[in-house]
Amino acid sequence: MAEVVVLDEDFRRYLDLLSSSGIDAVGTDDPGAVDDAEILLASPTLAGRVVHRLASLDWVQSTWAGVDALLAVGIPSGIVVTRLEGVFGTQMREFVLGHLLAHTQRVAERMTARSWDETPPALLDGTTLGIMGTGSIGAAVARAAGHLGMTPVGLSREGRSVPGFVRVHSDRLEFAEGLDHLVAVLPATPGTRHIVDADLFERLEPGGVFINVGRGSAVDTPAVIEALASGRLGRAVLDVLPTEPLPDGDPLWQVEGLVITSHTAAWSRPTDVVSVFLGNLECRRRGEPMRGVIDPERGY
Amino acid sequence: MAEVVVLDEDFRRYLDLLSSSGIDAVGTDDPGAVDDAEILLASPTLAGRVVHRLASLDWVQSTWAGVDALLAVGIPSGIVVTRLEGVFGTQMREFVLGHLLAHTQRVAERMTARSWDETPPALLDGTTLGIMGTGSIGAAVARAAGHLGMTPVGLSREGRSVPGFVRVHSDRLEFAEGLDHLVAVLPATPGTRHIVDADLFERLEPGGVFINVGRGSAVDTPAVIEALASGRLGRAVLDVLPTEPLPDGDPLWQVEGLVITSHTAAWSRPTDVVSVFLGNLECRRRGEPMRGVIDPERGY
Repeated sequence: MAEVVVLDEDFRRYLDLLSSSGIDAVGTDDPGAVDDAEILLASPTLAGRVVHRLASLDWVQSTWAGVDALLAVGIPSGIVVTRLEGVFGTQMREFVLGHLLAHTQRVAERMTARSWDETPPALLDGTTLGIMGTGSIGAAVARAAGHLGMTPVGLSREGRSVPGFVRVHSDRLEFAEGLDHLVAVLPATPGTRHIVDADLFERLEPGGVFINVGRGSAVDTPAVIEALASGRLGRAVLDVLPTEPLPDGDPLWQVEGLVITSHTAAWSRPTDVVSVFLGNLECRRRGEPMRGVIDPERGY
Repeated sequence: MAEVVVLDEDFRRYLDLLSSSGIDAVGTDDPGAVDDAEILLASPTLAGRVVHRLASLDWVQSTWAGVDALLAVGIPSGIVVTRLEGVFGTQMREFVLGHLLAHTQRVAERMTARSWDETPPALLDGTTLGIMGTGSIGAAVARAAGHLGMTPVGLSREGRSVPGFVRVHSDRLEFAEGLDHLVAVLPATPGTRHIVDADLFERLEPGGVFINVGRGSAVDTPAVIEALASGRLGRAVLDVLPTEPLPDGDPLWQVEGLVITSHTAAWSRPTDVVSVFLGNLECRRRGEPMRGVIDPERGY
């Protein structure tokens, strides 16, 4: 039995990176080929198919940020799951600022313009950005927004203050009141289901941008379509959806003002994954707490 | 004779703002209606039509950043011209980051997508941004780029180091070597004419973005078209052009990968203009140096 097993579509790349860090491991993309392991470095979907039958397993390091696919099958007691944490801020801040600025600067209209038009762009400077989720990704987005003169306002379960946010609410409707733009970075949990709905959109200033880079279940999609139609939202960018991939021909592709980005806002770069894994491996050997440990009760 | 005369298309707005700051002034948008003034708050084009015949004139505060239209008619000795300075950084950083990120995040393609596409975006993080011009606008763009993990490299006449830039060159070809993206923020002077040309583009990494937010004369436009056609540039954004407005039907509107933004990257907000004017008025009364004083020899 191998101590470390990689179970991921990209297992060859991970084995190369682990090998050059002096870590012995075996790898596969076939759950049926794994008979036992102490440690799994695995995608949550594939891990979910083996986690109940590997006798020696005590730690799963996810190669993704969101581990809802693994939580859905139940994590046996005695197994620690760590999610990929602290590596997506860079990608997420570029995605969020890019889509906010593309709207205010009217980039798509400018790209197809065929005559001189001196209408000035709107500014993000001086506007408020609501960020649902104040973890490492939310905080990275808040800092980047603050650098452009935006006022970042957070929402979290406890409403605890977090560096980078001017304030953090725990009441979602108080949070939403008067926000210019809104970003959701929430995990898929029972508590976040449809937390973004028509009541929330009603509180926003009209004409702003809504971006979902968390999980599709957090958003009531019909409410987004209505808010776009009424002008309550100026644009919506959904990187994540309740059903992925969204099939060709789905009416969502045709909704005016809705941008679907196919779950690409943050991708797991193998070098980042391996760096998180090695850090946690070292913590485990020293008996120190690992980073990104999942609380199955809380769901993230 | 009025001490302060406003000569600008927006003169009514300026008079309101001056009046609420306790400044007596008269205003017009007709150069023929101005018979004398000690101080002109004026657009450079209109100021150019009166500057040689106002006997008492000793100071012109421009309502724009670029005063080449005024320099073109020659500034009589004894008249100080100040340009609008220090107020465009906020607008320019949003314009530049917006167009860079819209390209790397493929926003326009995403807006018209009709099927799931998991191609990840490119990142600005870890790339180099060349900025031609290290004044207050260039420095604001450099700081914003640095906050997104880019390496900002400057070009200026003297090559003096400037906060916000990791280095500043005085040789334009050394400067351009290996840059990922390029922004020009240069004034119109004899020394900057066609300073952005095919030789410069040859030094860049292929596939990046070129943005001109300075003056159109700095850029050899046919070289931009060629660089887009060859793939040397992935996109070019020209906010300024040698002839403005660009006429309808001009072939430039049709060039693939070329975005024309109709000189809107930074607009003079009357509140900013008046704030700069009042600051300089106070310096003048105290006999202290004003901000943005033009050196007619240097041309900016």
